[in-house]
Amino acid sequence: MNPFTDQTALFTDFYELTMCQGYFLAGRAEDSAVFDYFFRANPFDGGYVVYAGLDDLLNALNGFVFSGDALAFLREQGFAEDFLDYLKDFRFNGAIASVPEGEVVFPIEPVLRVDGTIMECQLIETLLLNCLNFESLIATKAARIRRASGDRIVADFGLRRAQGPGGLLASRAAVIGGVDMTSNVLAGQQYGIPLTGTQAHSWVQSLDDELAAFRQYADAYPDNTVLLVDTVDTLKSGVPNAIIVGQELAQKGYSLKAIRLDSGDLAYLSKKARKMLDEAGFHDTKILVSNQLDEFLIRSILEQSAPVDGFGVGTELITGKKTAALDGVYKLSVYNGQPKLKLSDNPEKTTLPGKKQVCRFYDEDGTFYGDCIALSTESELAIMHHPHEKEKHCRLSGRRNEPLMQTVMENGRIVKQESNVSTIQAYCKQRLNALPEEHRRFEMPHIYKVGISDELDVLRNDMRRQLLAAFNTGE
Amino acid sequence: MNPFTDQTALFTDFYELTMCQGYFLAGRAEDSAVFDYFFRANPFDGGYVVYAGLDDLLNALNGFVFSGDALAFLREQGFAEDFLDYLKDFRFNGAIASVPEGEVVFPIEPVLRVDGTIMECQLIETLLLNCLNFESLIATKAARIRRASGDRIVADFGLRRAQGPGGLLASRAAVIGGVDMTSNVLAGQQYGIPLTGTQAHSWVQSLDDELAAFRQYADAYPDNTVLLVDTVDTLKSGVPNAIIVGQELAQKGYSLKAIRLDSGDLAYLSKKARKMLDEAGFHDTKILVSNQLDEFLIRSILEQSAPVDGFGVGTELITGKKTAALDGVYKLSVYNGQPKLKLSDNPEKTTLPGKKQVCRFYDEDGTFYGDCIALSTESELAIMHHPHEKEKHCRLSGRRNEPLMQTVMENGRIVKQESNVSTIQAYCKQRLNALPEEHRRFEMPHIYKVGISDELDVLRNDMRRQLLAAFNTGE
Repeated sequence: MNPFTDQTALFTDFYELTMCQGYFLAGRAEDSAVFDYFFRANPFDGGYVVYAGLDDLLNALNGFVFSGDALAFLREQGFAEDFLDYLKDFRFNGAIASVPEGEVVFPIEPVLRVDGTIMECQLIETLLLNCLNFESLIATKAARIRRASGDRIVADFGLRRAQGPGGLLASRAAVIGGVDMTSNVLAGQQYGIPLTGTQAHSWVQSLDDELAAFRQYADAYPDNTVLLVDTVDTLKSGVPNAIIVGQELAQKGYSLKAIRLDSGDLAYLSKKARKMLDEAGFHDTKILVSNQLDEFLIRSILEQSAPVDGFGVGTELITGKKTAALDGVYKLSVYNGQPKLKLSDNPEKTTLPGKKQVCRFYDEDGTFYGDCIALSTESELAIMHHPHEKEKHCRLSGRRNEPLMQTVMENGRIVKQESNVSTIQAYCKQRLNALPEEHRRFEMPHIYKVGISDELDVLRNDMRRQLLAAFNTGE
Repeated sequence: MNPFTDQTALFTDFYELTMCQGYFLAGRAEDSAVFDYFFRANPFDGGYVVYAGLDDLLNALNGFVFSGDALAFLREQGFAEDFLDYLKDFRFNGAIASVPEGEVVFPIEPVLRVDGTIMECQLIETLLLNCLNFESLIATKAARIRRASGDRIVADFGLRRAQGPGGLLASRAAVIGGVDMTSNVLAGQQYGIPLTGTQAHSWVQSLDDELAAFRQYADAYPDNTVLLVDTVDTLKSGVPNAIIVGQELAQKGYSLKAIRLDSGDLAYLSKKARKMLDEAGFHDTKILVSNQLDEFLIRSILEQSAPVDGFGVGTELITGKKTAALDGVYKLSVYNGQPKLKLSDNPEKTTLPGKKQVCRFYDEDGTFYGDCIALSTESELAIMHHPHEKEKHCRLSGRRNEPLMQTVMENGRIVKQESNVSTIQAYCKQRLNALPEEHRRFEMPHIYKVGISDELDVLRNDMRRQLLAAFNTGE
């Protein structure tokens, strides 16, 4: 399934095409390149990112062709015929290495690496950034909401506040980060995510009284009756009417599954409603709540010992509020076999040259200790340096470690693929559990160690010196 | 063009389908209903919303069918065969009235109204909310950025930080709100938006020196040379090299069109770069800037008299930061000819019953005075009441006024359509100019008057009293 449909090749920034025509005209179309995808800051003032979007990206790359319509449009934009001929036959035949989807990753480390011709690398840039930035943002938000919710049900209700057709990817990413189910029917169909949903206020409003509306719903869904109790007045009308319908269901051998609160003070109302349900004998009827929830409101509700069994989360989850975007970038690190580096007035923004791998090092108890970015040719990593502060380094010898990126595409063909969102979700959960608590907390999380190897440090510093020397700015 | 492709009918919340099956089983499928789309709060702490998304919605409704695949999936979800038969033949045959796309609108007033069977109204709810909420959010953000930028060029560079395929709609909405052009090639093709884009840092990095890279670009695009000057060092390398290439272009009869700054202090660098360009005689070479810009940064740059000719705006525009979502809702107001109202513990959230129209009243100088929400049967509006504060009202007599909503779809067919984004943008600009300045400012904008008519006030209050009396809560 390619969520970008048949228009994938035009889903790009115009400058990718002007640059590619430039490479083409300069006879550089077959030059080789390596690009790294990485981000610079954790979203939500948090301590990590859940990486997502890989499978959608791979499927989109499989469908990456310039259609006749696309070529006709580019002709109108003034592109040259021989370049259009090149695009007509263009397929992505490069290689991609990536950390697994659902992995827990950190700023500045390469998460995905593209090897190909400069044309291949450049033409897929925007698609790649769009897909990985967005899904990783939402998966990370979902992981935070999951953390706050403990083992209670969390459902994605966000589609109506999602970003156009982007809502499809958002629902998928939400599940990767730990959400149990979604209201988004298309996401259910495309990704096999469990669906949930019962009724809106309009159902209750459409009949003359709430009790009649509840009865009609219970008639239609006796084994899955969830009643929205806040259309009129939650405690004076909604819950009492739900109890009447629950009693009628019980007489027919069914049980009232749940009630949902969607307004008012959810902590207060859930306690009162629980008491009323319990007193009527409905101990098994669950209480679900929704209404502008995020990780902080959920935590607050549960801190008040509110008897809530499940959360419906919409806007905050599906838009990745407040951060709203992951700042992932895609930078050239090798061109025709030569390592490349981009300087910046801000030393933190100077890129890391060369073809690289990331190794994760573990503590004895199996938790993550730190990640070392190294050249992909390095074998023994004994020490890692702080990326910017010369004096800081730490020893790695003796620690169990493993490379994080694996080849997922070779010669344009997918060689490793995990499309099952439940499997990816389970992997994410396992990896988050191996991340020490201090990096997971919401408030001022401890910064996870990401360093660079000796060889990479030397290469980067040498290149930087040379470039700076060329116009004599010194350091 | 339907940006939701062939999957439109499944682009919905699951509860729309469970409710519809409920209506169907209860024999209510042919019952009639009216729903209002409105929002409750202006985004960005601003004073207005630019309404967008209508044309995409109308086109999506034209393609709203349940495919064989969709029905097979719903069968697996347990829906009944006779309901699936109903869905197989389902088409939206209702009526839609809407304010024009690009209109300036305000909280609580109906912006769009759907008349149809309860099934028609309900099945399109999620799609409608998704499309209108998202595009209106981005169009509003774009209008703010346009305001800050004066008459300088503003380009949308956001696709890489956009929300998956939602980026297509975002680029369209950005233009409606006042952005001039986009980097998004698909949006250029689908909506006829002018495209822009030249080169990335990778172009410069890929060669051994910046000057060679600039020369190669100027060779490929001599009549459209825009050079990105911050890859190495803006003032010591980028601008001097751009001037050399500009001199070479001049010898060939071309001129250096622009330079672009993408990092560092844009106000400082643009002043220094302007001076260097002017001293070398390049008075016509423009300076474009980009890098995490929003309306406040743009205002600040221009307040410092920075000689900037154009802005590339990405993340902040395309995600609608910080608000990230417009809170638009879709509420039942009439069922089988009977006005309906939803109470809420919060009086501001009680809905307005009945089939309604919005009339805009003007001051003598042609600026907007206020909007009055009335029943659609009312003709003379002499007075309008504050929606919640009983004591407040104002006289309308003698003021020029016009109804804002017009029929755009009838019996499921589009009867009024404006698809040209430039035309919509021009309308938006004209309407924003008629909105008094005090509602447009960024800081604590004056609240625009939206009131309700006498008849609507009486109807709403009577219904509210009756509903509350039913369980004796008093007021």
